[in-house]
Amino acid sequence: MPHHVPPLRIALIGHGFMGAAHSQGWRVAPRFHDLPAQPEMTLLVGRHAAGVDASAAQWGWNETSTDWRAAVERDDIDVVDIVTPGGSHAEIAIAALEAGKHVLCEKPLANTLEEAEAMAAAAERAGKDVFAMVGFTYRRVPAAAFARDLVRSGAVGEIRHVRAAYLQDWLHDAEAPLSWRLQQEHAGSGALGDLGAHAVDLAQFITGQQVTGVSGLLHTFVHERPLPGLESGRGAVSVDDAALFTGRYTGGAIGSFEATRMATGRKNSLRIEVSGSHGAISFDLENFNSLGFYDATAPGTRQGFTNIMVTEPEHPYMSAWWPTGHPLGYEHGFVHQAKDFVEAVAQGRQPEPSFADGYQVQRVLDGVQRSSAQHSVWTETL
Amino acid sequence: MPHHVPPLRIALIGHGFMGAAHSQGWRVAPRFHDLPAQPEMTLLVGRHAAGVDASAAQWGWNETSTDWRAAVERDDIDVVDIVTPGGSHAEIAIAALEAGKHVLCEKPLANTLEEAEAMAAAAERAGKDVFAMVGFTYRRVPAAAFARDLVRSGAVGEIRHVRAAYLQDWLHDAEAPLSWRLQQEHAGSGALGDLGAHAVDLAQFITGQQVTGVSGLLHTFVHERPLPGLESGRGAVSVDDAALFTGRYTGGAIGSFEATRMATGRKNSLRIEVSGSHGAISFDLENFNSLGFYDATAPGTRQGFTNIMVTEPEHPYMSAWWPTGHPLGYEHGFVHQAKDFVEAVAQGRQPEPSFADGYQVQRVLDGVQRSSAQHSVWTETL
Amino acid sequence: MPHHVPPLRIALIGHGFMGAAHSQGWRVAPRFHDLPAQPEMTLLVGRHAAGVDASAAQWGWNETSTDWRAAVERDDIDVVDIVTPGGSHAEIAIAALEAGKHVLCEKPLANTLEEAEAMAAAAERAGKDVFAMVGFTYRRVPAAAFARDLVRSGAVGEIRHVRAAYLQDWLHDAEAPLSWRLQQEHAGSGALGDLGAHAVDLAQFITGQQVTGVSGLLHTFVHERPLPGLESGRGAVSVDDAALFTGRYTGGAIGSFEATRMATGRKNSLRIEVSGSHGAISFDLENFNSLGFYDATAPGTRQGFTNIMVTEPEHPYMSAWWPTGHPLGYEHGFVHQAKDFVEAVAQGRQPEPSFADGYQVQRVLDGVQRSSAQHSVWTETL
Amino acid sequence: MPHHVPPLRIALIGHGFMGAAHSQGWRVAPRFHDLPAQPEMTLLVGRHAAGVDASAAQWGWNETSTDWRAAVERDDIDVVDIVTPGGSHAEIAIAALEAGKHVLCEKPLANTLEEAEAMAAAAERAGKDVFAMVGFTYRRVPAAAFARDLVRSGAVGEIRHVRAAYLQDWLHDAEAPLSWRLQQEHAGSGALGDLGAHAVDLAQFITGQQVTGVSGLLHTFVHERPLPGLESGRGAVSVDDAALFTGRYTGGAIGSFEATRMATGRKNSLRIEVSGSHGAISFDLENFNSLGFYDATAPGTRQGFTNIMVTEPEHPYMSAWWPTGHPLGYEHGFVHQAKDFVEAVAQGRQPEPSFADGYQVQRVLDGVQRSSAQHSVWTETL
Repeated sequence: MPHHVPPLRIALIGHGFMGAAHSQGWRVAPRFHDLPAQPEMTLLVGRHAAGVDASAAQWGWNETSTDWRAAVERDDIDVVDIVTPGGSHAEIAIAALEAGKHVLCEKPLANTLEEAEAMAAAAERAGKDVFAMVGFTYRRVPAAAFARDLVRSGAVGEIRHVRAAYLQDWLHDAEAPLSWRLQQEHAGSGALGDLGAHAVDLAQFITGQQVTGVSGLLHTFVHERPLPGLESGRGAVSVDDAALFTGRYTGGAIGSFEATRMATGRKNSLRIEVSGSHGAISFDLENFNSLGFYDATAPGTRQGFTNIMVTEPEHPYMSAWWPTGHPLGYEHGFVHQAKDFVEAVAQGRQPEPSFADGYQVQRVLDGVQRSSAQHSVWTETL
Repeated sequence: MPHHVPPLRIALIGHGFMGAAHSQGWRVAPRFHDLPAQPEMTLLVGRHAAGVDASAAQWGWNETSTDWRAAVERDDIDVVDIVTPGGSHAEIAIAALEAGKHVLCEKPLANTLEEAEAMAAAAERAGKDVFAMVGFTYRRVPAAAFARDLVRSGAVGEIRHVRAAYLQDWLHDAEAPLSWRLQQEHAGSGALGDLGAHAVDLAQFITGQQVTGVSGLLHTFVHERPLPGLESGRGAVSVDDAALFTGRYTGGAIGSFEATRMATGRKNSLRIEVSGSHGAISFDLENFNSLGFYDATAPGTRQGFTNIMVTEPEHPYMSAWWPTGHPLGYEHGFVHQAKDFVEAVAQGRQPEPSFADGYQVQRVLDGVQRSSAQHSVWTETL
Repeated sequence: MPHHVPPLRIALIGHGFMGAAHSQGWRVAPRFHDLPAQPEMTLLVGRHAAGVDASAAQWGWNETSTDWRAAVERDDIDVVDIVTPGGSHAEIAIAALEAGKHVLCEKPLANTLEEAEAMAAAAERAGKDVFAMVGFTYRRVPAAAFARDLVRSGAVGEIRHVRAAYLQDWLHDAEAPLSWRLQQEHAGSGALGDLGAHAVDLAQFITGQQVTGVSGLLHTFVHERPLPGLESGRGAVSVDDAALFTGRYTGGAIGSFEATRMATGRKNSLRIEVSGSHGAISFDLENFNSLGFYDATAPGTRQGFTNIMVTEPEHPYMSAWWPTGHPLGYEHGFVHQAKDFVEAVAQGRQPEPSFADGYQVQRVLDGVQRSSAQHSVWTETL
Repeated sequence: MPHHVPPLRIALIGHGFMGAAHSQGWRVAPRFHDLPAQPEMTLLVGRHAAGVDASAAQWGWNETSTDWRAAVERDDIDVVDIVTPGGSHAEIAIAALEAGKHVLCEKPLANTLEEAEAMAAAAERAGKDVFAMVGFTYRRVPAAAFARDLVRSGAVGEIRHVRAAYLQDWLHDAEAPLSWRLQQEHAGSGALGDLGAHAVDLAQFITGQQVTGVSGLLHTFVHERPLPGLESGRGAVSVDDAALFTGRYTGGAIGSFEATRMATGRKNSLRIEVSGSHGAISFDLENFNSLGFYDATAPGTRQGFTNIMVTEPEHPYMSAWWPTGHPLGYEHGFVHQAKDFVEAVAQGRQPEPSFADGYQVQRVLDGVQRSSAQHSVWTETL
């Protein structure tokens, strides 16, 4: 962290679990990467003063506030980092962009397609010196980034099949309590927006192709759940527990998608398999320091899936870290995100993925919902 | 093989790769299982005398014939075992049933839904002493049978998710030659009937539930292929290379299906994952002496997928074989099929799966084709 | 099985579990391989008439006898196949060789080094037209044979490390009953001879190197076990439960060895890892249709262990079997052994491994015992 | 990080790769754990002013120095953290302890047994309020700590077998250059001290047993290597490339050990397998968010190795981190080490492992060297 680089002063809006992850990203990125600007953890913003003060002390933010509107206007803030629930993303992000701040916004971009579209438009309006990025951090897992590199290099050839599934199981118990994540008014959708967004983005990122249409099936297995905490009685689940869909890609591939929080035994399994005319790739977030690669051009008796430990210094992001064979963890994605964001902004480049990218993912998810509501009929999304 | 049991005299119609597998089944079953009747390899039937004679000598059949119609009428034949291409299944099977012979018929039951229906009706008409069975041998892989036992025992609880995929890659090379399997007039359909039939049957077998409706997507990646052998030029592929579909099950589960012969790197991967309120199961034919089982009722810190080697004497079919830890191979499924068929027929019971079961699988596949032709719209199949 | 080839008439001495396996080998080999002679299951020999008659009926042997000495003298016997306990191998094998019969003898060659030496000498004396082979069938697992091919091709380079372990767990329960396998007078040694022999042979086979010296540690965990059956009381275990040793190889490699029947959870795990200057190989009998191969000459970012499914027609033994991706099972090793034996004998070649090879393995095991008795001091074995 | 806790002021001596790891530990620990004292990154000490200044700026240390003797005497330093090469550990650690500072020292404790003994004695002399700890961080991998918990709980029963191997491959290329790690005068030993120390410590930690004696085999495959950098010519390798040894444990178990930097394809594979009368455990650092556990008391048909993702909040260290299923990385071990050290010191408890523990590990390694020099003869180590 050379001292002569300019500061990049950050306000973090929100301080749930994602706040901890983003804080770790800003804190650690400059310790392992030589950055062209120095992120400063200037301001933490939350709704309740006591809570935000405790979080700021824990995580190392210099100041706190309960007024996000004031925060995004402050002259001494360069970046607004938004980790609130999806329903407030649009309002905060648009205000920040209009105030000329760079914005990093957690995924999904918004709870509704309209909001997402407005955010993408605001980013467009903000001009060429103000940048907005949506936080699909799994792109920054080295094995996922290396998968994309392999595809780009032609190692997979012409892609035919994409299998994308994001499987979790924290709702598999029908007596797990109701939460805001299970209510449409707060969460927009269920597994579809929470997990399906990641699956769509990562599949598109690795393949370099976009989803052109879908046939969807949303399903809710448990329609009522106990109210949380000390409340008695039950409340209605108004979002999907699971989403299944098929899709077509711009490059001619076809694919399956699944997003569920009821896949008993799967804790955080985001699996992407891509197969093409020359090879195949297999990725699973539960084993995320590795990538499976099949080279169909190798001698026939020696073909098979190679379990590549993506920990060589030549692999994406890895030169900054440890000797070969030493694994990274979940929050390294946030460190890499901070690095990429700082580098792009400091160098006047648009960081990837943009709000337009996030909006495109939302269109796919919206297509799934519309298809599901119309007997799974094929629905264009591009 | 006690000598006092009655014989069960078999005529095998067809002698391709499946003929070798069925022959091994009849040959080996009585050497490891105590059967209530003794299968005798009486007659091998094929179209060309020279070929069928060579096969009979290789495999150990007593006689040969080129006339299947005569064969199914012979008094000294008890069982007609059909391993010809699907287009001739109906004619042979119906004639055999009408002649009062028990019938074992390879899957898929037929190339068309009409033929399959006629076969199921013929089996019904044949009366309570004549039995017909369709050869979904993967039910007889011990790990698959044990998966069904676990579901029946309640170890998985209420099933929510079923993931069924049958992935092969022998067509991934766009220059692989055309064959009858790629022509609708001979094969009926492509990956759907060849591989999807297995996926549907096995998913239904393990879960004990049937598919009530589907949304399907059939796709052909390579529309023309070189003519085989010495012919020059190219011919049209008129079947699907791949089938993707979603489905609902009678018990409330939802599921995804995939069948493809272009999943580069997957040689014979029939994967079934089932997850429910109490646990989950994971099966892959490429590693078929094992079964993954997740027990969600175990102590929290000790939960995980258990890799059960399905080689204990208490596991299905295994008491006849080797000490624990000694794996079985592909053709053991045919040995178990022979055993189950002989036992059921000798004891006057209907062997599973029946022609009615095979017809029901065909209805699902037909639904996939109709849905795919109608923009993937949801299509009832039950 | 063309009918014009000469017969090879076999007498099988012994009819325990290994009798079933060898019978399957002789039965099935000619059905899948074109052999230059036709094995005939002529005579089954056992100690008790009733038992041997039942086994012969079950397995399909034409005649039975309780007199092995007469059997090995019969003019209508060409091959004596010995599957009795190790203590009787020498007497039977030497008599058969002196009678001019080809001999196939189960491993370990004998219970004592002296007997093994005598057998190797008898095989030598028998002349150039009479052949003796010891039954290390795991050499005939296609993945193991392919591992040897990879080493021979130079794909591993100069070998440095060999890890060989044969782990079972059927004695892990201290209340498992005493059996002849736990008594030195019957079994010679415990895990060392039973499992260690396989580990040494397979490691030497794959590497093409021999063990020149060892440092050994034998250990018995459970010194008394319940008497079997209806007997009360306990009897002494007089063999090793486990053997650990290190060794050096003729080509400069060093290696570790383990043999145990108390490795809880490991059912039949014979693992061989070989690493060298150019690559590495990883084999496990519990997953024996696959081989791990690491190519250290591949591009750096793409290196990793490749999980090769050893089911391609170009892989050893596989052209006779099923389409790619269809696995073999335990008894296929016995089918391949029968094939290799018949081919060598019919063509006048010495089948591998010879009795001299079996004797050399015994010398290594003897060295382990001597080293263990002398505070693990290094002991030459070549 | 509550502000009212007392500071714990740290001087870090050394700033190579281990300096980066320790810095990350001190930096991150208070952000995720509520600590009873606040680690402050006060002083970084190195030999060359420019280098240490750059590292301090990169890693966030407040001050720098090139005089470790002055550093360990400073009143404003509470903890001396030593990450220099092993040859200087004793001098620095003893001086720090004599100055009344708490000491954390990287492993191996020292290059020679004499130095290690002196360090343990110095720690003993330092009195009950001054604490010394050796940095075997792999004990702090949650899966390893959970393995120990399982053993303690009785889930493995009476331990019989321990397999411990630490396999790397960064020296497999015979043309990899000479470095200080390959020269006895600088490194003490080769793979034995570098990797074997971890294997011995972790095996003892998980089992709760100590190694009582060994039979060892040290080997150097490549005796000369190119001089590094721009120098021409070759220099002698004077340490072991690989160490193999067998051992006995205080509780009656026997075990194998391997340490090598030439296990082609293994990047950082520290594997520990423990099997006992009731179950077994399997750990591999290359897949370190998981633990294999075999429960031999489960119903027979459901036994198998369970792949436990050690990411539940009830698992060791995990409540501080992310939702279930989100993996940790290599440096989390250093964060946990910092946490455990701070907690113990602030609460007046001896942190584990102590210098006495580190010295005991050295005695085992010394026994291996003596045994290897004496034809592998058994050598007591306790």
